[in-house]
Amino acid sequence: MSDVFADRRRRLAGLLEEKKLDGYLFGGVSDLAYLTGFSSEGFQGLVTAKGAWVFSSALLAQQILEGTSGVKVVVGKKLGEALRGLRGRFRLKKIGFDPQQTTYDTGRRLVKKAGLMASPNPLASLRAVKDAGEMELLRRAGRITAEAVQWTIPRVRAGMTEIQMARMIRNRFERLGASDIGFELIAAAGPHTALPHHHPGETALKRNQAVLFDVGCRVGAYRSDLTRTFFYGSMPASFRRVYRIVETAQKAGFAAVKPGNRGKDVDAASRGVIKKAGYGRYFVHSTGHGVGVDIHEAPWIRDKSPDALKPDMVLTVEPGIYLPGRFGVRIEDTLRVTSDGYEILTKGRNE
Amino acid sequence: MSDVFADRRRRLAGLLEEKKLDGYLFGGVSDLAYLTGFSSEGFQGLVTAKGAWVFSSALLAQQILEGTSGVKVVVGKKLGEALRGLRGRFRLKKIGFDPQQTTYDTGRRLVKKAGLMASPNPLASLRAVKDAGEMELLRRAGRITAEAVQWTIPRVRAGMTEIQMARMIRNRFERLGASDIGFELIAAAGPHTALPHHHPGETALKRNQAVLFDVGCRVGAYRSDLTRTFFYGSMPASFRRVYRIVETAQKAGFAAVKPGNRGKDVDAASRGVIKKAGYGRYFVHSTGHGVGVDIHEAPWIRDKSPDALKPDMVLTVEPGIYLPGRFGVRIEDTLRVTSDGYEILTKGRNE
Repeated sequence: MSDVFADRRRRLAGLLEEKKLDGYLFGGVSDLAYLTGFSSEGFQGLVTAKGAWVFSSALLAQQILEGTSGVKVVVGKKLGEALRGLRGRFRLKKIGFDPQQTTYDTGRRLVKKAGLMASPNPLASLRAVKDAGEMELLRRAGRITAEAVQWTIPRVRAGMTEIQMARMIRNRFERLGASDIGFELIAAAGPHTALPHHHPGETALKRNQAVLFDVGCRVGAYRSDLTRTFFYGSMPASFRRVYRIVETAQKAGFAAVKPGNRGKDVDAASRGVIKKAGYGRYFVHSTGHGVGVDIHEAPWIRDKSPDALKPDMVLTVEPGIYLPGRFGVRIEDTLRVTSDGYEILTKGRNE
Repeated sequence: MSDVFADRRRRLAGLLEEKKLDGYLFGGVSDLAYLTGFSSEGFQGLVTAKGAWVFSSALLAQQILEGTSGVKVVVGKKLGEALRGLRGRFRLKKIGFDPQQTTYDTGRRLVKKAGLMASPNPLASLRAVKDAGEMELLRRAGRITAEAVQWTIPRVRAGMTEIQMARMIRNRFERLGASDIGFELIAAAGPHTALPHHHPGETALKRNQAVLFDVGCRVGAYRSDLTRTFFYGSMPASFRRVYRIVETAQKAGFAAVKPGNRGKDVDAASRGVIKKAGYGRYFVHSTGHGVGVDIHEAPWIRDKSPDALKPDMVLTVEPGIYLPGRFGVRIEDTLRVTSDGYEILTKGRNE
């Protein structure tokens, strides 16, 4: 496995050269996990063409030594000092850091004390295209997520709370071999389905209410993301009408998922259907996002996103319509971009 | 409940006046939950003596309107612009933001576009002292955590994986009425107990190994933190000796928990015992931390911490000794500071 990480660092070093950087400092947990195989808060890593270093306190040093290979571990030094030392010793002139994943305090210190510069994170584009090993985990995560939701929906009963429904899905994930939940699971009942980011609470489901599950699991370091909305009881025409619009919007988004298109094209395709049906102002979020080590990562599927879709990118398509106080409908799947279209990863074994 | 939050904002406004600030911008989830009762990523809040505003996208606006009271909700405006407008309208000259909870990108924009200034977060000291409502939740969280661990330890068997043990504890938390886990639960078997921040994996426990649980639950927004280390099988003298030193160190720390002492005094008391026994270099972390809406918050119990202990602060005392490749021992409880000492919150109903 260590070769995978060394290879990623080598490819990153190539990208840095293109961007005229001598190195880049990473502080985000997901970036560091992607580059070293070790996942934890509380350490930083520098990648250069001349080698990779991680900076750690004594607290984590032992775990980093056991959990990584091919990186030098600098223990117990102040980050600014350690970086200054390496800059001199290896003639590293321009070292970047991610201004969106670094605090204002730390960023100011890196600029003042070590001469680093804020610079867009070059890893996002590498992480967006998945290799075969990553795809295997993403496939398993997608299948487990779909199967857990399929298993749960027919077991939903009036009187169950949102928290109980979310726990049923989580327990099913575990039964099916997931490592963990992929993010805080959403289960919403009745009018709560109209709140896109609802947190499950003690609200009990009643007969003749909408139910929305927005859930995903993690397998290894990789995640999946799936939303299903259904009506518990006898479905009124108003729900059916909105559901069909969202379903059509999702399919239009799917059709735009292919190499050569951009994130904004997929967004426009889904959003166009909803706007045309007169519900544009009730679709209050972007159409999707990439999925990988993070549940939200590049490519971004939203208005103005220039991200070009490439084979083996993994992303969601998740249009929704939310009618405040009444109900909301969102339908979401996680897709792989293929050479000429897409493949749905959030499918059960027998779908 | 809304009065609690309005009262917190009023007390904060008083603190701002002392610090010669006309307002403070919050972006951290826990700070915003403490000030508004609404917990979510993706919005910001400004507190001033003249009122409180939150800034949100359309995505969250409905939830914020339903979940808060007494704050004005500004929807869909750029943060810099919205702040500039309020500064002019209400003559707010000096507005601070937290340089440790704001990204470098956002911080630079706030300084340049809205004239804000990096300034220490004034809420930490307010949050550190708990009121009666908070204490009730912290007590329940402490009791559930202790009872779940008491229930689990006698049920541990050879062959169980770390993940299985962590899930047993989590499921027991849920059975006992917890809202959720308080943080990623640690269960470590054998030599993994020597890694203070181990992530539970597929390693199965064998007979005659050490086991360490570092776990806590959440009740409402409040958390607890407890560590127990025990030996599964027949305990060797080396483990017993180290265990007794850590136990003595924890008691010495307890004795230093009282108003008038500082965080550094508690740290020195625990650390002194371990140093004297010759294990100083194997105690690689601080002795404790405050606990509340965040699992780690003020007061800080570590070397040089000037934080003065006050009645109704809640904090951990958790010394440890870690022998790489062999085993580690950590013992941790969550305590309330009383008028003349401490009360242990991580105790079962019958302890």
